[in-house]
Amino acid sequence: MFNPELDRDDSLILHTDLYEINMMYTYFKKGISERKAVFEVYFRKEPFGNGYALFAGLSHMIDYIKKIHFAESDLQYLKENENYDDDFISYLRNLKINLTVRSAQEGELVFANEPIVQVEGPLAQCQLVETAILNIINFQTLIATKAARVKIAVGDQAIMEFGSRRAQETDAAIWGTRAAYIGGFDATSNVRAGKLFGIPISGTHAHSLVQAFGNEYDAFMAYAQTHKDCVFLVDTYDTLRSGVPTAIKVADEMGDKINFLGVRIDSGDMAYISKKIRKQLDDAGYPNAKIFASNDLDEKTILNLKMQGAKIDVWGVGTKLITAYDQPALGGVYKLVSIEHSDGKMYDTLKISSNAEKVSTPGKKQVWRISANSEKKNEGDWISCWNEDPRKLDALYMFHPQYTYINKIVTNYTAYPILKDIFVDGKQVYVEPSLQEIKKFAMTNLDGLWDEYKRSLNPQEYPVDLSQALYDHKMHLISKIRNQIIKRECED
Amino acid sequence: MFNPELDRDDSLILHTDLYEINMMYTYFKKGISERKAVFEVYFRKEPFGNGYALFAGLSHMIDYIKKIHFAESDLQYLKENENYDDDFISYLRNLKINLTVRSAQEGELVFANEPIVQVEGPLAQCQLVETAILNIINFQTLIATKAARVKIAVGDQAIMEFGSRRAQETDAAIWGTRAAYIGGFDATSNVRAGKLFGIPISGTHAHSLVQAFGNEYDAFMAYAQTHKDCVFLVDTYDTLRSGVPTAIKVADEMGDKINFLGVRIDSGDMAYISKKIRKQLDDAGYPNAKIFASNDLDEKTILNLKMQGAKIDVWGVGTKLITAYDQPALGGVYKLVSIEHSDGKMYDTLKISSNAEKVSTPGKKQVWRISANSEKKNEGDWISCWNEDPRKLDALYMFHPQYTYINKIVTNYTAYPILKDIFVDGKQVYVEPSLQEIKKFAMTNLDGLWDEYKRSLNPQEYPVDLSQALYDHKMHLISKIRNQIIKRECED
Repeated sequence: MFNPELDRDDSLILHTDLYEINMMYTYFKKGISERKAVFEVYFRKEPFGNGYALFAGLSHMIDYIKKIHFAESDLQYLKENENYDDDFISYLRNLKINLTVRSAQEGELVFANEPIVQVEGPLAQCQLVETAILNIINFQTLIATKAARVKIAVGDQAIMEFGSRRAQETDAAIWGTRAAYIGGFDATSNVRAGKLFGIPISGTHAHSLVQAFGNEYDAFMAYAQTHKDCVFLVDTYDTLRSGVPTAIKVADEMGDKINFLGVRIDSGDMAYISKKIRKQLDDAGYPNAKIFASNDLDEKTILNLKMQGAKIDVWGVGTKLITAYDQPALGGVYKLVSIEHSDGKMYDTLKISSNAEKVSTPGKKQVWRISANSEKKNEGDWISCWNEDPRKLDALYMFHPQYTYINKIVTNYTAYPILKDIFVDGKQVYVEPSLQEIKKFAMTNLDGLWDEYKRSLNPQEYPVDLSQALYDHKMHLISKIRNQIIKRECED
Repeated sequence: MFNPELDRDDSLILHTDLYEINMMYTYFKKGISERKAVFEVYFRKEPFGNGYALFAGLSHMIDYIKKIHFAESDLQYLKENENYDDDFISYLRNLKINLTVRSAQEGELVFANEPIVQVEGPLAQCQLVETAILNIINFQTLIATKAARVKIAVGDQAIMEFGSRRAQETDAAIWGTRAAYIGGFDATSNVRAGKLFGIPISGTHAHSLVQAFGNEYDAFMAYAQTHKDCVFLVDTYDTLRSGVPTAIKVADEMGDKINFLGVRIDSGDMAYISKKIRKQLDDAGYPNAKIFASNDLDEKTILNLKMQGAKIDVWGVGTKLITAYDQPALGGVYKLVSIEHSDGKMYDTLKISSNAEKVSTPGKKQVWRISANSEKKNEGDWISCWNEDPRKLDALYMFHPQYTYINKIVTNYTAYPILKDIFVDGKQVYVEPSLQEIKKFAMTNLDGLWDEYKRSLNPQEYPVDLSQALYDHKMHLISKIRNQIIKRECED
């Protein structure tokens, strides 16, 4: 049973895994909760076999960080359910989030194995926010990326997000459609998303309108008498024999009283039916009436339908987009990369894995997008230690972080940093762009990417390289930890 | 940019597709918005190739219906963005939801092509709530079903939900874990879900604890000194050579001061490593220490690991459950089945499809679960017209709705109705059970199902039959509509 009393206190601060709070407790009791730490978010592989990902989720992440605080009911819940002592509860009660957060901007291209969010500040606080940040960033980046794939398949035609009824609960529907808008969608069916985010909304009627009036003629006529812009759904009974002829009849009868924008189909073979409809509309003197299609579409179906010459003008995409059907999760992780020790100095950390390319990269880092001045296209990303700045160099040595013999020297380039300051010591310093600006930023960024990286199947791998200093630092740390393990084994 | 001002007014009433409100407008202007209508929710295929689905989402649906109302900011948004007139805006302002809603209960078994939610009342109101109801029910039923599959694979062992960081935004994380709990999970890592729903919460520490302390010994020791119950995560550096030996060392040194519950692994080959760990723990004198495993597990991996004799005691399942990874959407639809005409009488409706089995079943219906008194197992479901009651019959003729030669006569049975009154004329009459009761109800329901229907791969098809009267009614209506179409074509 959902408890509305508790709901009122619901700041999302408890939207975290219990182990985060258990670790906070250990840090607090051991006196290291305020030690400075740096965590970074990255994913290990672009979703859908894509050549890039499109970053989204920052707006919700900012809102989350700004609002979190422990309400009394949160503290009471923790006290009753876990064995935390009163000191810790008081510490939580007085907790003021003063993290420094850096992030890629929404609509930015991001790639596997580079930091896309960086959280710096007291160890315990960094730990607390892990789960929600990943929850938000993983989903929204996933959907923005999917949307960009669909948009590339659609090209210059219009594309609508229709997936609310199949989304994974209500937040996914609205934040998902916002991410889709960033990725290139033109409108959403979800009115709440329209209201909250200013996304254009779109929709006319469903089969139930036809059923309620008992037949298509009365239904279309009723709709036409109450709406200026008309798109009739024509597949309730029989698209070609009943739906389209009735739509045409109503359009003829209403004349200038309506804008007959077109017809929508939601079933049947889209290639065959759309061509037949196109002929019916053209023959009836409506060459400008558009054909709207929606029926479990995704980038693959769309490419296939286009290849078959389907006469579809406006694409409605629902389930396959809003759930990222073919890969419904992005595996972003949040790893400690640097930690203050008792001497007050920062020490870089890594996680070793038996799987070589899964070893994390230590230290606080920056990602630089390297763009060739001649071509205005990206040469690749260059991950550096925090204190390095490629803008001060004349030539950049870029090499593959595993296959180091793949390398190049880049000159005459522009470098700009991907991680921007969002919060500094808990204070928001980043001014959020409007959603329109974010969408435009995304489209400009996609333009800066060679087509080879944008191919939806088997794209070329985009270079994400480490600076020489960072590479050396990582190798050094790996052998140091390996040696410690061997040393400890020998001692035992 | 997320607008906190608008957020405050956010009752979910605009969490609907625009076409719903466009249809409401047509109904209102045509004077039929208050005509009585009946809509039903059903899905066409059980998810994951499963033999059943486990219903969930009712609690959120109730909360949604209770809270919806048009705030002034909602009305202003609609007025500014759509061409609705003032009469309609006034109508929305004064709208009191007085729907009658019937539904399967949470934890109930439900099957393809039977109504699982039924919404009855003024046509316009019925239309308004479609999107949110589908959004909620589709997702939660999907996850509860996935959870039941995983639970059946796990058997009597313990199973935890760990998926928040990969869930599709924040609602999916909490409502998803609630659905998982209904489906058989024992606990969640999400503290907020614990607080809101009373689900047991679970979790110890992450790799970052080890990294923060610089080595496993210091980290485990710090954790042990601050927590009575200890499960150590042993795969930060090297599970068998470092992680497990260190956990044992700390357990030895701490002795009775802690409950050494076991170790957790999150990488590597789970079958091989778990057997090796088991031996290490046994040899060290900890035969009761458990092995917790989590690493992209689902019911298939779990069955395989068990077959290989993996020594895992507690299963943590994340991504694959919380996103229903192998089928991230349930295709539930919401169809008008009956509508009042101007004569004040109800007329049943259907939607015809070129795909024969996709034709909807007309009329307001009830679903009866038929259970053989001898075996205490289900014989199948029997969908009837609303006024039929199999409890008044001595024998029930059950036949396949497509292959009617597959049939049987059932005697000595118990029939109980699946659709229960939730709201009557807008007033909630259903008393929600506690989450514990729902979970128990689900487990009892699964017990009532023959194993043949519970097989995770290629289960037997569970009978969902129509009463003779309903079958005849449907056939009659199909030919009536077909004839009308032909007649209209001849007239043109």
